[in-house]
Amino acid sequence: MSTGFAFTKGHGTENDFVVLPDPDGRVHGDLDPALVRQLCDRRAGLGADGVLRAVRTAAYGDPSAVAARGSAEWFMDYRNADGSTSEMCGNGIRVFARFLASEGLVSADRPLVVGTRAGPKTVTFLDDGRLTVDMGAPEVLGETKVAVADRSWPAQHVSMGNPHAVAFVDSLDDAGPLRDEPGYDAAVYPRGVNIEFVVRRGDRHVAMRVHERGSGETRSCGTGACAVMVASALADGAGPGTTYRVDVPGGRLDVTWDPAGSVLMTGPAVLVAAGTWIA
Amino acid sequence: MSTGFAFTKGHGTENDFVVLPDPDGRVHGDLDPALVRQLCDRRAGLGADGVLRAVRTAAYGDPSAVAARGSAEWFMDYRNADGSTSEMCGNGIRVFARFLASEGLVSADRPLVVGTRAGPKTVTFLDDGRLTVDMGAPEVLGETKVAVADRSWPAQHVSMGNPHAVAFVDSLDDAGPLRDEPGYDAAVYPRGVNIEFVVRRGDRHVAMRVHERGSGETRSCGTGACAVMVASALADGAGPGTTYRVDVPGGRLDVTWDPAGSVLMTGPAVLVAAGTWIA
Repeated sequence: MSTGFAFTKGHGTENDFVVLPDPDGRVHGDLDPALVRQLCDRRAGLGADGVLRAVRTAAYGDPSAVAARGSAEWFMDYRNADGSTSEMCGNGIRVFARFLASEGLVSADRPLVVGTRAGPKTVTFLDDGRLTVDMGAPEVLGETKVAVADRSWPAQHVSMGNPHAVAFVDSLDDAGPLRDEPGYDAAVYPRGVNIEFVVRRGDRHVAMRVHERGSGETRSCGTGACAVMVASALADGAGPGTTYRVDVPGGRLDVTWDPAGSVLMTGPAVLVAAGTWIA
Repeated sequence: MSTGFAFTKGHGTENDFVVLPDPDGRVHGDLDPALVRQLCDRRAGLGADGVLRAVRTAAYGDPSAVAARGSAEWFMDYRNADGSTSEMCGNGIRVFARFLASEGLVSADRPLVVGTRAGPKTVTFLDDGRLTVDMGAPEVLGETKVAVADRSWPAQHVSMGNPHAVAFVDSLDDAGPLRDEPGYDAAVYPRGVNIEFVVRRGDRHVAMRVHERGSGETRSCGTGACAVMVASALADGAGPGTTYRVDVPGGRLDVTWDPAGSVLMTGPAVLVAAGTWIA
């Protein structure tokens, strides 16, 4: 296993990542899943929800795949903590963009297009230090149901590329300790689902908890916050053209459903440490 | 809050620590508890069970306190993840000694005396890379009882400076998921207790799980492994002069109750990353 390479650790609303600079793809090559698991191990490693390898698009993968990724100079090679690849991560891409800017590898003065497995994504650096990510258009797929113990709630089925079930509850405590996966309709979600519990906090202001498919309850979920905003706007008869504040356990996200149909998510990205992996 | 300072991250049987080099006490001074909490935060920080500040004894505290610490050149200023101080940590002191040796601040060729709030402690570097810590003499304080849900077990009350209740069980699964604190006799343990569940794996070989007072179930507990060894040796009619292998969820410790009465614990110490805190 390789050692002596550079890393940066950061988080977005407490969804945390190890960033691995690898501009020419020569440090990590295909990035060993065992190394990803070791880095993300919260006791024996650095600890993170995932790894973001920063590699130039030209150095990543075969030329036809590169062409499909458009004009992005940088590719976000995102890995889950278990070593598997993933398409996109709305909190991770802010940390990724912050890292590139802090290293002087990109300019924070203009929108940055980042290559991802879900296609090119645009990130904008705001003057107040936050970043906005164009998360694409939601798909609203009708009503379903979720359950915890002996309680159940109607829920909105929203896709942000990945599946969500958004349930409005009277209190975030209603979902209990969320140690186990809530019940859902397996006919609607044959590959599982991310489940959000939402309460209203004020005008265009909601708060949520989320149980992520395969991860359990987490401090934040970017696509979940987007799905919650869309379900809330629809419930309010608001629709595109509105902005909601969405409080997650790890902080605050602001989500705009723009008139063209895309969902824009704004939030923080914090780099906390940088150094060398020596294990 | 200070920033731009050096850290090293390491673990001993997956009990993990952020080490802060501060030889002259000028980097961190009294070490702000808020900074300790931030460093140990597993999402918004580096994540650790505690912080080990490495400060020269001569630079730590008032002269009378320094005199009481004996000949130790280095003091282990140990902090729990919540920012509070703690006396000693059997897994932490191995990581601390490994750090000093890897930086060339001490020699690994002879035993190292480390100052701690529980007095000077001796650490020995073994040829196979492990380290042995003299954990002092146990106090065996009689029989008590612990309980999980509707089951209960007799337990040995052993003190290693801190209180333990050691229960032999048929299977480590008998204690269940250990999400909640097991029941114990509050008259025996008015300030709480660390509770170990133990099974026999072979001749002088046991395996344990531990619920630590204030922390919940953990991957390893150094004093817990020592208490388990002592209770096992007594149950076997073995007593001082024997060595037991104690498997913990995060690895393996070997514990010797030496004829002079002290308990010597041997285990690994791994440094995984080094860098700069930039948050």
